[in-house]
Amino acid sequence: MIDLITAAYPICRSITGDGVRRTLRMIQERIPLEIREVPTGTQVFDWTVPKEWNIRGAWIKDPSGEKIVDFQDCNLHVLNYSVPVHEKLPLAELKKHLFTLPDKPDLIPYRTSYYKEAWGFCLRHRTLESLPEGEYEVLIDSTLADGSLTYGECLLPGDSEREVLLSTHVCHPSLCNDNLSGIAVMTELARELQARPRRRYSYRFLFIPGTIGSITWLALNEVKIDHGLVAANLGDPGRFHYKKSRRGNAEIDRAVLAVLKASGEPFGVEEFVPFGYDERQYCSPGFNLAVGSLTRTPYGRYPEYHTSADNLDFVKPEALEGSLRTYLAVMGVLEGNRRYRNLNPNCEPQLGRRGLYRTLGGDESGRARELALLWVLNLSDGEHSLLDVTERSGMSFAVIREAADALLEVGLLEEAP
Amino acid sequence: MIDLITAAYPICRSITGDGVRRTLRMIQERIPLEIREVPTGTQVFDWTVPKEWNIRGAWIKDPSGEKIVDFQDCNLHVLNYSVPVHEKLPLAELKKHLFTLPDKPDLIPYRTSYYKEAWGFCLRHRTLESLPEGEYEVLIDSTLADGSLTYGECLLPGDSEREVLLSTHVCHPSLCNDNLSGIAVMTELARELQARPRRRYSYRFLFIPGTIGSITWLALNEVKIDHGLVAANLGDPGRFHYKKSRRGNAEIDRAVLAVLKASGEPFGVEEFVPFGYDERQYCSPGFNLAVGSLTRTPYGRYPEYHTSADNLDFVKPEALEGSLRTYLAVMGVLEGNRRYRNLNPNCEPQLGRRGLYRTLGGDESGRARELALLWVLNLSDGEHSLLDVTERSGMSFAVIREAADALLEVGLLEEAP
Amino acid sequence: MIDLITAAYPICRSITGDGVRRTLRMIQERIPLEIREVPTGTQVFDWTVPKEWNIRGAWIKDPSGEKIVDFQDCNLHVLNYSVPVHEKLPLAELKKHLFTLPDKPDLIPYRTSYYKEAWGFCLRHRTLESLPEGEYEVLIDSTLADGSLTYGECLLPGDSEREVLLSTHVCHPSLCNDNLSGIAVMTELARELQARPRRRYSYRFLFIPGTIGSITWLALNEVKIDHGLVAANLGDPGRFHYKKSRRGNAEIDRAVLAVLKASGEPFGVEEFVPFGYDERQYCSPGFNLAVGSLTRTPYGRYPEYHTSADNLDFVKPEALEGSLRTYLAVMGVLEGNRRYRNLNPNCEPQLGRRGLYRTLGGDESGRARELALLWVLNLSDGEHSLLDVTERSGMSFAVIREAADALLEVGLLEEAP
Repeated sequence: MIDLITAAYPICRSITGDGVRRTLRMIQERIPLEIREVPTGTQVFDWTVPKEWNIRGAWIKDPSGEKIVDFQDCNLHVLNYSVPVHEKLPLAELKKHLFTLPDKPDLIPYRTSYYKEAWGFCLRHRTLESLPEGEYEVLIDSTLADGSLTYGECLLPGDSEREVLLSTHVCHPSLCNDNLSGIAVMTELARELQARPRRRYSYRFLFIPGTIGSITWLALNEVKIDHGLVAANLGDPGRFHYKKSRRGNAEIDRAVLAVLKASGEPFGVEEFVPFGYDERQYCSPGFNLAVGSLTRTPYGRYPEYHTSADNLDFVKPEALEGSLRTYLAVMGVLEGNRRYRNLNPNCEPQLGRRGLYRTLGGDESGRARELALLWVLNLSDGEHSLLDVTERSGMSFAVIREAADALLEVGLLEEAP
Repeated sequence: MIDLITAAYPICRSITGDGVRRTLRMIQERIPLEIREVPTGTQVFDWTVPKEWNIRGAWIKDPSGEKIVDFQDCNLHVLNYSVPVHEKLPLAELKKHLFTLPDKPDLIPYRTSYYKEAWGFCLRHRTLESLPEGEYEVLIDSTLADGSLTYGECLLPGDSEREVLLSTHVCHPSLCNDNLSGIAVMTELARELQARPRRRYSYRFLFIPGTIGSITWLALNEVKIDHGLVAANLGDPGRFHYKKSRRGNAEIDRAVLAVLKASGEPFGVEEFVPFGYDERQYCSPGFNLAVGSLTRTPYGRYPEYHTSADNLDFVKPEALEGSLRTYLAVMGVLEGNRRYRNLNPNCEPQLGRRGLYRTLGGDESGRARELALLWVLNLSDGEHSLLDVTERSGMSFAVIREAADALLEVGLLEEAP
Repeated sequence: MIDLITAAYPICRSITGDGVRRTLRMIQERIPLEIREVPTGTQVFDWTVPKEWNIRGAWIKDPSGEKIVDFQDCNLHVLNYSVPVHEKLPLAELKKHLFTLPDKPDLIPYRTSYYKEAWGFCLRHRTLESLPEGEYEVLIDSTLADGSLTYGECLLPGDSEREVLLSTHVCHPSLCNDNLSGIAVMTELARELQARPRRRYSYRFLFIPGTIGSITWLALNEVKIDHGLVAANLGDPGRFHYKKSRRGNAEIDRAVLAVLKASGEPFGVEEFVPFGYDERQYCSPGFNLAVGSLTRTPYGRYPEYHTSADNLDFVKPEALEGSLRTYLAVMGVLEGNRRYRNLNPNCEPQLGRRGLYRTLGGDESGRARELALLWVLNLSDGEHSLLDVTERSGMSFAVIREAADALLEVGLLEEAP
């Protein structure tokens, strides 16, 4: 995952353009990704696919002709989606196009202007403060022209056409946690799921520009999502945060919470709010999909967010790995969550006789496994799912699933219709 | 409001009689009030309208002939509804008819005997302790005779016949917070609502004697109340307290709580109990109306309650004003709480294009207004009301209502049937 | 209760055999108990009634021929259900059959091996540590042979065939709290209920061996239980603990909680878990009966549990008496919990006129009784039961029941159909 992040870090991505294409091709080297192009001008619900933006270079020269800001050094320097410009102008005029972070004077901010044509530069506040009066020259060698919006889609077919959606945005330039971590973890997740001999669900991975990407996908495709997650901010050292779907108590919500609880680590949970990443589109009232968002520190709550400090040093291999394991565990719950019927519903069956039970009263070994067996038997009335058993027992889904497997093996359970 | 309280303070009110009539006439000078008379003996459910009580004077003379207690000084001195008496009796005998507050020896208590014929005096405990042995002369120049029960009713018709009930009691004599504050705030509330060009609801104000007044009104009228509040104790400096309707989660309950939460001030909330003011009648099981009670410090919980210390000094103009504003805000929620349908339910509409949205990504201005727009859009599925949106968003109803208005204006919402 | 416990303490009970028979005969001297015998080999759901176990004596002699462990001293010394044995064996071999409590070296543990044929001895860890090397002689003079499983059943018929089940286990040998306390309290409870002229419900008391006893009863009888409790651990000085039925909010659950809350004493409440005593059978998914378990300190949570320290000193007369009173109060709720209809549902009735109400406003005497009257009137809409009124008012069921009786007497209530 670190390799992919390192390779993709220098690329200047945006909501359209070659930066996204190059990034998707890197993903394509790892998983079976379809790269889709949707032409500029395509109507997608209330929106129109915008012109494609590409950029080759940009700089500001001070009155002495020295480049004081250069896109080559860091692609955050350019207001993302800036129209082309090449002109000379006095400092006072220039300042209307400059963005800094006065309270983090050594960091370059990340700013965009997708839906209003503008140009600008982002720079360290310390640089801004040092600028002498005089005439400056600015160049932004960009194009904003008809082209297309590009996104990637990877479908791993399963035993049923019911789908799990995994969506991450790919529109941020040199920012590691806010977007490359999601890209890397989703790529690896797809690889691990692809390697499995069977999948209960089909898995659809979307690597899309934020907002316009999910709107485009929702507008142009038949949507048949059972469960979904929006992935982002998965490489920082913070604890996990889960933002529930609009439904609030969907199976995906309960699955994520079961996994986070069983981890023993502290985590945050939040109710749905109609802002954030693409869950705001998936959870718009016309769709109201069961899509939540599982991140580490949520967007906007770490000081490096949307600045040049969200760099290669900020994301950690062990954080990425933990994120991948957590997503895999959630998929494990979705795959394994079924409803069963206890075939010996009147009183407990004699587990000892079937080798499932301690035979010596008072011996405490195997106690947890035994309790899991009793929980599954007690609640398997055809109405409770294994996730219900997990929640009510307070045990981990894995232990409950294992107990159900043992009971299935000795013929004490059958799957409920 | 202070003017009305000051003018009405000296009047000796009771559940019937001229004190109530005079008070209602003062209200009538301010709002279109109908004054109703219901004859003694009228059967009202399980009750009978009692005889009318009027009083001209009352005193106790000590053995030396000096008036030691005089109704002219304070009308609380007479046990309210005392039958007439004029006799001489020894101190020991007299004491059976005297009421004091031993733990507040300088205050005169307020006591009544409506449904059992009796006579008595209320006085300072310090006065009682100073009384010498000997023969005392008592006079209560009252009449208890056939007449009528008097109450006031003010109906402000609205666009529909669905009604909001605002009820306050008018049966307490010289007590300012416990009853005059309610009278003053309700009078002013009626005046403000009357001045409006349109009202969604019709508003019915009742100025009635406690218990028997509401029973009489409920017995003799066709009841078609959608929402209601019982008003009292609105002039003391304490925080607001809301006592929920018997239903517990009626729209009026949620409206009041939304207003109190948005105020940012501490407040109390209590579940319905079948005692208190007239909500006990409105919420009797045969009616079970959506009527709660919004007060400042509830009855019985301030030391001045039902004593001569509940006087003109105790009620404060700013407290009355705050109470009026709070009632108006609650009426604002009732007037504005509707259900809408988002006409662009699939994904978010492009707000920027409609001038409703910041166009420059990263700019934080107008953030709250923007969030309100997103909340209204997200939850306007024809099922959620704006009060639902308010509760779920944690924002104020006013901000949510304003967002809905903006969205209506640009054609993104329609009212749900 | 102490008499019964003292008399039954020395008997060596097990899940079958004469120990249970002798104990049931002691109970039979006090209440009308039917003693049932179910033959070895009878199929009861997934289980088979086991062979009957009886024991006459058992000892271990050390190399010098001295008895170092003797069943006559304490019947816990024998692993319950040990097969007969008489042999000589070296210490190392013997140790495989010895059970001790290393962290409670002066206590004899209680151990069983019902469903796996084995033999063994339980002893003080201090004794084990002092054993010299050499050859030991062991004797267990037991029989494990076809016979029957014995249990006791006492049915107290009531006005209806709807039943309350009270179940306690009788399979533990010399242990006082874990089993004799339950036996004693249930016997006394049956005696008190039997003495009543009328009972709304029929009461069925089961004195049964744990697990196999309840399974046998459920398998061989027609089950028509409305409410039930499993009784155990009722003589220790700990606070009450209630474990809810699987249903979680059954009337029995609410009745017990109402009684415990009204006690003013601290108590514990726990959700249902599918392990513990016989509630695990009553609450198996095929039955899902409304059966909870009311104990003092739950099994396994006091250090004396399943050791020789659970002796006559450990159970206290006042604890037993308190347990009996608590069970009686719960039965009182079940007997008295009915639904009524207020016959004067529109506004409050005039209670004063009926002698139910203080007549002088302001007098605070009789306040609690008055509030109970108002609560019952307000909630008696044919839907709320007196237990609902109890929960919502926060008052005790006894006070609410008394208020309902007073209102019935004056004709203000009728029972709802």
